[in-house]
Amino acid sequence: MTGDTPYESLTPDTLPARLGGLSAVTDHAGDPASWTVEEVGDGNLNLVFIVRGAAGAVVVKQALPFVRLVGDSWPLPLYRAFYEYHALTRQAARDPGMVPVIHHFDRGQALIVMEFLSPHTILRGKLIAGEKVAGLGDTLGRFCARTAFRGSELSMKSADKKADVALFAGNVEIPAITEALVFRDPYCDAEMNHHTPGLDPVVETLRRDVAMKTGVQALFQRFASNQETLLHGDLHTGSVMATGSDIRIIDPEFAQYGPMGFDLGMLTANFLMAFLSQPGHRQDQNLTGYQDWILAVIANTHDAFVAEFTYLWRRERTGMLYPAALFEDQGHSSEAALADVLQHIWADAVGFAGVEMHRRCLSLAHNADFEAITDPAIRAPLEARNLMMGRDLILARADFPDAAALCERARQFNEKDIL
Amino acid sequence: MTGDTPYESLTPDTLPARLGGLSAVTDHAGDPASWTVEEVGDGNLNLVFIVRGAAGAVVVKQALPFVRLVGDSWPLPLYRAFYEYHALTRQAARDPGMVPVIHHFDRGQALIVMEFLSPHTILRGKLIAGEKVAGLGDTLGRFCARTAFRGSELSMKSADKKADVALFAGNVEIPAITEALVFRDPYCDAEMNHHTPGLDPVVETLRRDVAMKTGVQALFQRFASNQETLLHGDLHTGSVMATGSDIRIIDPEFAQYGPMGFDLGMLTANFLMAFLSQPGHRQDQNLTGYQDWILAVIANTHDAFVAEFTYLWRRERTGMLYPAALFEDQGHSSEAALADVLQHIWADAVGFAGVEMHRRCLSLAHNADFEAITDPAIRAPLEARNLMMGRDLILARADFPDAAALCERARQFNEKDIL
Repeated sequence: MTGDTPYESLTPDTLPARLGGLSAVTDHAGDPASWTVEEVGDGNLNLVFIVRGAAGAVVVKQALPFVRLVGDSWPLPLYRAFYEYHALTRQAARDPGMVPVIHHFDRGQALIVMEFLSPHTILRGKLIAGEKVAGLGDTLGRFCARTAFRGSELSMKSADKKADVALFAGNVEIPAITEALVFRDPYCDAEMNHHTPGLDPVVETLRRDVAMKTGVQALFQRFASNQETLLHGDLHTGSVMATGSDIRIIDPEFAQYGPMGFDLGMLTANFLMAFLSQPGHRQDQNLTGYQDWILAVIANTHDAFVAEFTYLWRRERTGMLYPAALFEDQGHSSEAALADVLQHIWADAVGFAGVEMHRRCLSLAHNADFEAITDPAIRAPLEARNLMMGRDLILARADFPDAAALCERARQFNEKDIL
Repeated sequence: MTGDTPYESLTPDTLPARLGGLSAVTDHAGDPASWTVEEVGDGNLNLVFIVRGAAGAVVVKQALPFVRLVGDSWPLPLYRAFYEYHALTRQAARDPGMVPVIHHFDRGQALIVMEFLSPHTILRGKLIAGEKVAGLGDTLGRFCARTAFRGSELSMKSADKKADVALFAGNVEIPAITEALVFRDPYCDAEMNHHTPGLDPVVETLRRDVAMKTGVQALFQRFASNQETLLHGDLHTGSVMATGSDIRIIDPEFAQYGPMGFDLGMLTANFLMAFLSQPGHRQDQNLTGYQDWILAVIANTHDAFVAEFTYLWRRERTGMLYPAALFEDQGHSSEAALADVLQHIWADAVGFAGVEMHRRCLSLAHNADFEAITDPAIRAPLEARNLMMGRDLILARADFPDAAALCERARQFNEKDIL
């Protein structure tokens, strides 16, 4: 299979014949005759195959020319594999070891052959199952800090960043999904919306709140315009794979330039949703203990972000922004400037978290944390807490001094009877 | 002369032979035999020729492969003519009649043939001479609002804006001039800096002010990352040509995507510098009356910006940001959101104004408002007021409710003895 072959989606049956000649696959999976192929894509967009053979296994991820969740009525360009590939290479350079190793990329087939992570499973499933992962917050916070800092003009040469901005500006339809599903649809009567019965009064409250919608749009403008760094762009707990102690980040096909707090905010939101949905999954002391652990992960993520960003600020601030020439070289500390930068990142993160908490219960793509709660009578009040806390985060995004304050607010919402 | 001819800079002697075959020139200037050619470029970067002939006149602007002000030790890419051309076409579409008509563009020769504006002269010269221009603030404020709004995702389709962002991201060296000369050099001991004798204590005060330098860098990060709209990028009073009542904007070769308040801030700074430098140009009641007029222009510029931006918000808000679907379509006013957007634009404008006021007295490219005051003993105290007011604007950029408050502050600084 070469770049000249017209695009054709793979199946478990056709994959061995089509990829059997690629050393990138045979080196890791062995002789094609030994292969078994399983399609495991449970996301919204792509085909994902595990190819197991005599020598091991690889993952083959191929983009489909439409949104898998919706069908071919929603076409989506194959070029997103190209952006995913470029995002993976940049993330691998900025935080080595945190993303799967790439064995092969075929632009024409919109296909990436990569490391098979085993026995890793999707973090969201672990959070629903009540499983802990050692070092989770530390690792994720460090990843967010390293990719945010090293992808910005705090670190990069401006010319290199501008060239990369131009490259990623070619990705239009993928950001358009976020633009519509995250920043618009939850707040109006959009066609693909759906929500749990019983939530109508909460939905009404959100849509009537002009100050909150104004905040959402201010965040939207920052997301669309403020190209501070290269984001993962979709860093929820379904984009994290883990064992009990090893953690990897996958699926950066929503990569785009955006505000440094966006990924941190997405992660924080998804942990908050894991926290608030727990009463639908377990009871009693298991519940309290596990909820405490999730809040500790949120705090650890934030603290690790701050610690790593601070380290990089002191050691790798080689870009044009906040240059040493204006601070250290004149005998002045830049720590107050750092605090200012971190405060803005955190305020953005809190605001984006609020928006993410809304869209995951109101817009097209819900998350399993709540969806796996089968009884709507149990699910609705938990989602109501989540929605009202999201509102709080958007409105008061500049007022949370740190993650501890955010976790305290989460505990309060966890006790509220909203419906 | 075609695009295949290697670049060669024009001279008054070679121009008729090289451009005599272009109908874009002969249509407006007549038979080449009738031409007289004058090189009039007084800017820092380019060759500018006026070609006068039997049928009229045109301007021929050609980029040089280095910074004219500095010489060939500072090379500068010819592609800036390409960006100037694209900026002119966008400005012409967004505020018709405000930029010179383009007759011809030759990318290989980095050359634009355009309308000869007559009897227009550079606005900065008029301000130094004490001449008034009718409707000045209204026209400039409207231009800033139209270009800001219509170049943003308040108006444009996101895909179109992303394509344009990618195009302009290719312009690296021109923004790099602003990045260095505006946002860094004034605040450190940069090689090309110079300032009027006697200002050392003020320069020291600025460089010791860590909070202010932090503010400058926050503004710098917004300038470098926050690509809200296509800016003119160099909208000082030397980029405005006027008669007593007709006003045009020229020289957008520093065009780049950036914050919506940048151009408004540059203009405001240059009017403030015109205001504060007036005591070096005239005395007594002429002084007071003319200074009052300049402050009125600042207020008019701001008020016209707000009025036009408001008009466009209500009539042309067709982009993805702040969509009617979330406001008017639900029976909710978006005027509070508009006020929020305008407040952020204005805070940016005030901050950028402060930075511009600094760099024009401390960095490489000073402006004639102060430079034309030949006696350093008169110039220094006026520049000191300007520098200290710039500091004030950076530190308190979020605290000026409107231009009236800014003008009041300018009156206070106009009375201060700083040295």
